[in-house]
Amino acid sequence: MEGNNSVTRTVFFVSDHSGVTAETLGQSLLSQFERLSYRPVTLPFISSPERAFDALHKIDAAAQADGSRPIIFSTLVRDTEREIVKGAQGLFLDFFDAFLGPLEAELGQKSTHALGRYHGMIDVATYMTRIEATNFALANDDGAQTREYERADVVLIGVSRTGKTPTCLYLALQYGIYAANCPLTGEDLEEASLPRTLRGHERKLFGLTIDPLRLQQIRSVRRPDSRYASLQQVQLELSASEQIYRRFRIPQLDTTHSSVEEISSRILEVTGIPRRLRT
Amino acid sequence: MEGNNSVTRTVFFVSDHSGVTAETLGQSLLSQFERLSYRPVTLPFISSPERAFDALHKIDAAAQADGSRPIIFSTLVRDTEREIVKGAQGLFLDFFDAFLGPLEAELGQKSTHALGRYHGMIDVATYMTRIEATNFALANDDGAQTREYERADVVLIGVSRTGKTPTCLYLALQYGIYAANCPLTGEDLEEASLPRTLRGHERKLFGLTIDPLRLQQIRSVRRPDSRYASLQQVQLELSASEQIYRRFRIPQLDTTHSSVEEISSRILEVTGIPRRLRT
Repeated sequence: MEGNNSVTRTVFFVSDHSGVTAETLGQSLLSQFERLSYRPVTLPFISSPERAFDALHKIDAAAQADGSRPIIFSTLVRDTEREIVKGAQGLFLDFFDAFLGPLEAELGQKSTHALGRYHGMIDVATYMTRIEATNFALANDDGAQTREYERADVVLIGVSRTGKTPTCLYLALQYGIYAANCPLTGEDLEEASLPRTLRGHERKLFGLTIDPLRLQQIRSVRRPDSRYASLQQVQLELSASEQIYRRFRIPQLDTTHSSVEEISSRILEVTGIPRRLRT
Repeated sequence: MEGNNSVTRTVFFVSDHSGVTAETLGQSLLSQFERLSYRPVTLPFISSPERAFDALHKIDAAAQADGSRPIIFSTLVRDTEREIVKGAQGLFLDFFDAFLGPLEAELGQKSTHALGRYHGMIDVATYMTRIEATNFALANDDGAQTREYERADVVLIGVSRTGKTPTCLYLALQYGIYAANCPLTGEDLEEASLPRTLRGHERKLFGLTIDPLRLQQIRSVRRPDSRYASLQQVQLELSASEQIYRRFRIPQLDTTHSSVEEISSRILEVTGIPRRLRT
C-alpha cells in the first residue's frame, strides 16, 4: 500500500460517545490524501478525566512507537476531557472546538457543553419508531412472510442481489422509514410484468439495478459457476427488470458504485418521502 | 418549543453525497444550544455547479422567507461547488474547509479534492462483507430459524424488547460483524439457566438489560394491558436475566439511555471484537 513518499500514521478517533461520527468525518478527510496509509484506532466513551488521560497515554505511546505524530479526530463535547486529550503528542482536530465559536456568535447564545445531549436523549417514541420500522422491514423482506404494502412508505424491487434488503434495513434504522422489498423473478421477468402482489401499489415502487459484471461477481461469491451467476443470465434478468421499470414508470437507481447509505439517501430524495427520524 | 429569547432558524445540510455526515455533525453541534429551534433541510448529492446553484437559491429563499440567516453545514469536497454554496446568505460551516488545511500541512501533501473518494469506492469485497453479515443477522435473529452460533462474532441475549434485533443489524451494516441474538424466556428465566442452544458458546454471549419502567412502556405500546407488559412481569424477567448474566459471567449493558449506535459501539469496546468494515 505504501508508494514513494508515502506517509504512515496512527489515526485516533476520540469521542465521548460511540465514535461513529469522528470515524466518518475523519475517514472522509483522510481519503483525500493519496499518499497516506494509516492505522485506525477508535477510543469511544471518553467521558471522564480518567478515561481522557488513558486516551492521552495511548496516543503518546503510539507517537513514541511510530516515531511520527498521530492524527487525532475528536468529538469531545466537554472542555475538561478535550483539554486533556489536546495535550497529546499529535495533530488534534476537534469538531466542537472548530464550530461552536462561530455558532455561538451567530445565535447570540452560549452552548451548553453538556454531555449526553450529543445524540439527543433517546426517548420511547424515537425508540419505538426505529424498532417498528425495523420490524416492518424484517417482516416484509423478499416478498416472503407478510406483504403489508399498504403500510409501506416504499417498496424496493429488483432482481436477486441488487441491494434491496440492506437498503430497507438502513432506511428503517437511520430514518424510521417503512420499507418493504420484493424480488423480480421467473415469469414476471419473462413477461416483463409486475408480481401480482405489487399491483395497486405501483406508486410506492422503486427499482434497483446494477452493472451486469458487478452482479455476476456478487452472485459468483454465493454460487460459483451456477447458471444464477452466469453473465448471460444476469444480463437477461437486469434487462427485463429495467424494461419493467420503464413500462410501469417506476423510478430506478443503479447501485453499482453506491453505498447502502447513498442508495437510501437518494431514494428519499427522488421519492420525497419525509424522514420519520433524525439522528 | 420556543421559550423566551429563543431563536428559530432554517438549517441546511449540504453534501455531495448522502448528507448523513453533515446531518450527524450538524445536529450534534446544534444540540448544544438550548434556546434554538430549527427546521432541518437536507440537500444531498450537490455534485455539479448546477446543483450547487439550486442549493444556493433554496438557501437564499429561506433567508428571505424567514427574515433570518440560515445555518449551513456542508461536507462539499470540491472547491467549485463549495465556493458557489458559500455565496448563500447564511452562516456557512464546511467540515473540509476547516480541517483539510491543517491536514495538508501535517502530512506534507496536497489533498485531491476529488469527488467520489468521500466514502471510499465501494468494492465487491466490502459489499459482500456487509451483505453476508446482514444475512447472518437476519437468519440468526431471535433464535428462530438457524443457530449458526459457531460462525457468530457475538450472540446478544436478553428478554423481549431490550434492543437485540436492531443492535445486531446495526453491527452488521455498520461494522460487518456477525451478530446473532437469542431471547431469554420462560423456563430458562425461571431456572436462571441458559437456553440449551447457547451452551458451549458462553464466551460469545453478551447480555442486554433495560430499566423496568422503560421496558414496561415499550411493551405497552405493543400489547397494552397485557401480562407481558405488566411491571411485575417485566421486573421478574429482568431480574432473572441479570441473574443469568452474573451466574455465567456474561458481560452486560443497560440500554435504557443509549441509541442503537452507542450500544453497538460499546459492545465492540467491551468484547474487543475487531471491526470488519470501516465506513
